Formats: sequence, C-alpha cells, structure tokens
Amino acid sequence: MTATPAWPPQSAPRLYVETALGEGVSVAVDGNAAHYLISVMRVKADEIVLLFDGASGEWAAKARDIRKRDLVLECVAQTRPLETTPDFWLCVAPIKKGRIDLIAEKACELGVARLQPVLTRRAVVDKLNLDRLRAHLVEAAEQCGRTALPELSEMMKLDALLRDWPNGRHLFFADETGGAPIAEALTAHKGPAAFLVGPEGGFDPAERDAIRAHPAAVPVSLGPRILRAETAAIAATAAWMTLNGDWAKE
Amino acid sequence: MTATPAWPPQSAPRLYVETALGEGVSVAVDGNAAHYLISVMRVKADEIVLLFDGASGEWAAKARDIRKRDLVLECVAQTRPLETTPDFWLCVAPIKKGRIDLIAEKACELGVARLQPVLTRRAVVDKLNLDRLRAHLVEAAEQCGRTALPELSEMMKLDALLRDWPNGRHLFFADETGGAPIAEALTAHKGPAAFLVGPEGGFDPAERDAIRAHPAAVPVSLGPRILRAETAAIAATAAWMTLNGDWAKE
Repeated sequence: MTATPAWPPQSAPRLYVETALGEGVSVAVDGNAAHYLISVMRVKADEIVLLFDGASGEWAAKARDIRKRDLVLECVAQTRPLETTPDFWLCVAPIKKGRIDLIAEKACELGVARLQPVLTRRAVVDKLNLDRLRAHLVEAAEQCGRTALPELSEMMKLDALLRDWPNGRHLFFADETGGAPIAEALTAHKGPAAFLVGPEGGFDPAERDAIRAHPAAVPVSLGPRILRAETAAIAATAAWMTLNGDWAKE
Repeated sequence: MTATPAWPPQSAPRLYVETALGEGVSVAVDGNAAHYLISVMRVKADEIVLLFDGASGEWAAKARDIRKRDLVLECVAQTRPLETTPDFWLCVAPIKKGRIDLIAEKACELGVARLQPVLTRRAVVDKLNLDRLRAHLVEAAEQCGRTALPELSEMMKLDALLRDWPNGRHLFFADETGGAPIAEALTAHKGPAAFLVGPEGGFDPAERDAIRAHPAAVPVSLGPRILRAETAAIAATAAWMTLNGDWAKE
C-alpha cells in the first residue's frame, strides 16, 4: 500500500499575485517572486505552487516554462474558497519603521479587514511608505495562509477620519484618562468596529476630546500597565477577535 | 503664580537595578547604564532618575558624584509601590532570535508574571540565551513603567514541565486539532493559569496527546487563521489579560 500524497503538497510555496485567478489562468512570474521560486525554493516543472489574488480564494498552479529569471504558473484547481474576514478595522498613527511594520504583519495574521493609517498631532513620523507596509501585509498573508489581504488605505488626518466615520461602526480607542475595561466594552458593543491607536506620545487633549465627543466612540482601558503603540494595536485586535470576531465561534 | 513642576519629572530616565532599594540607599552605577545616563540622557547633579529593583516599587533617586564613566544615585522617595502582577505564565518553545525577543518584550508589557521556555521535539532552536532574553525583559520593564520583572526560568523539557505541573493552575494551549473558542475556555477556567505555545512546526502528535491527557490542560482555538508562534503567544496573553487578568477590572 502506498500512501496517497497530500493534496495540495504541504511544502508547496504560497504566493500572492495581482492577476485574477481562475481555472486554466496562466500567470507569468518574474522579478523577486520568480527568484524566490526558482532559486530559493527550486521549483521544477509540473510542481505545484499555491496562488491567491485576494479575491478568488486559493489555487494550485503548475509550474511550467521555467527559465533563469521567469516562469509561468497555470491554475489547475481551486484549493480553498475566499475566506470571510471579520469586519474590523485597525486605525493607527504612523510610528517608527520596524514597529509599524510589525503592526501590519500582525494585523494580517490576526484577521484585520482594513488597516487605516491616521495622522495625529503628536505623530513622530508624518510620512508612511505604503508600498513597504503593503509588502509586509502580503508576506504575512502568504505565510499565514490567508486568501484575503487586509485593505490598506491612504493616510488620513484624524479630523477627516472622524468627520467621515461610517454610521454603525464602533470606534474603540484606548483612553489614558479612563475607559471601561475592554472586555466589558466589547461585550456591550458587538458588530462592525474599528480600534484607533495613537502615536507613542498619545493623542493631544483636543484630539482626545474630539474622539470622545464622536457618537461612535467607545473609550476603553487596556489595563494598568503602559503599552507601546504597537502592543496596544496588537492586543486590542486580539481582544476584539477573541470576543467579537471569528475566534468566538466554534 | 508659578506652576508646580511635576513630581517625579515626566522626563526622568527609568532604570532597573539589582540593588535592594529603600530610603537613603545609594546605588553606584557604571557600564552601559552609566553611559546611557551620563552621555545619552545627560543627567546632571541633583537631577532625578527613577529606579526599580523588581521588589521594592519605584524610587526617585538623585544623581551625584557624576564622573566620566560612573555616578551614584541616592534614593530620596518612593514614587510607586510594587505592582501586583496577575498570576499568568507564558510557556514558549524557543523560536528564532528576533521572534523570541519579541515575545519577551511583549510578555513584559502585557503583564506576564513568569516566562518559561519549554523544549519540544520540533523546536528549531534548542539553545536559548537567557541573558539576552532577560535584557529584553528589563528594557521593556524600564520603558513601560513596570515595577516588577517577569520571572525568567531556565528552559525545561516538555515532559518535565507536565510532570511537575502545579496543582490548580490551568494549562491553556492552542490545539490545531481542535479546542473551544478561547473566550469560552477562559470564561470557564478562571484563576492561576499558563498558556503553552509550541514552536513553528507545532507539537508532535505524541506531545499533543501528552498535553491533552494532563488534568490541567485546556485545549483552545485561536480562530481560523494560522498564527506564527510569537503571534499566538502575544494574542493568547492579551486574551487572558482581557478576560481573566487585571484588564478586566475598573
């Protein structure tokens, strides 16, 4: 008796592509992705690579036409449908390079639907490299098996974010001046939500007043210890997923 | 009218020391810590540095005898009592350098009482630099205002950990083969606890059976997405703090 090989092979490389995928679709791959597949993973002809485009689920694709710097991947079967992503946005002030990259990576792993950079007065960084952030989202999605990518929005100013805030979406934020314990606040406010995290220096008093005055705002406490901005973002996301997201279902 | 300066000064550097602190205690500081205070923070005579020793709360200390490579800090007043730390252990298999360092930093910020490295069969790393991990715990405690340091234990083998497991401490673990949603498991199991996180490759089947068979074990699910080991450790800690730790209190 021979064991049936696992399908798709567990060791298959996994790649995000911008081409819309479907039965028989061929994707020409070059650049870094081709280098990774050909020289690092040493993919041979007819071997399987898993592809996802953020919209069509995951596809097993066969490698062909492998050359030095490019190859073609041809979709042969859908291996997973598009995942459903819980309706949670993470709104974060830009912070130092390594730490905002960590937020992007963990937001993707934890299942955030949208990452919204927000410019606040005390931000130490006022420019953000969206391409780099997007690369971190893509890499995390490739590694953690997501078939959807979190949406990454252009940076907005805090006042514009508050002015254009959609009806029916709770706006949780960690308020150093006091808020309900996060478990209590989450239990009392189910449904579409966002968590807003300020920069290292926090919101200034006028910003805090403007957030608190917003009808969607829910001030919360993340406990008695001081958390760095990226820790607050990751912990709040985990707490929301635990109580109100899809971690709460069997 | 002159504004009363804040006490202790908000910009005061904060330092962990191994000397037992108390009224009038003088601490001689040299090495990296002295370099940081003298050359980076440019501390002058009579300026305040905040000290903590992990056992006596936080103390305001006055700088004196500042020389090129050393100085003396003299405790003048206790600024905070020793914090109470919720009774939560994080037990983690060693993983790659940057990622286990991240676990140490975030464990400290989130309020973990003890960090317990655990050797499992699929660990990709079997040695652990405890001094480096401890340096990350100390730095995080200095930055996030903790007055206690998480206890850092020597690495144990998984079977020894299970054999010597203390009575009355729940052992939560993320079981890829299925477990209750984490919110449900946490609500049903209050009290002293630990969360056990395997290495990137997970527990092997015999290990998983041994954990599941332990009377303290509570298998949980952290949702439908695959989490990296360090993400599972941070997310599980945040979930425990949210529902069973001191984030759940006003």
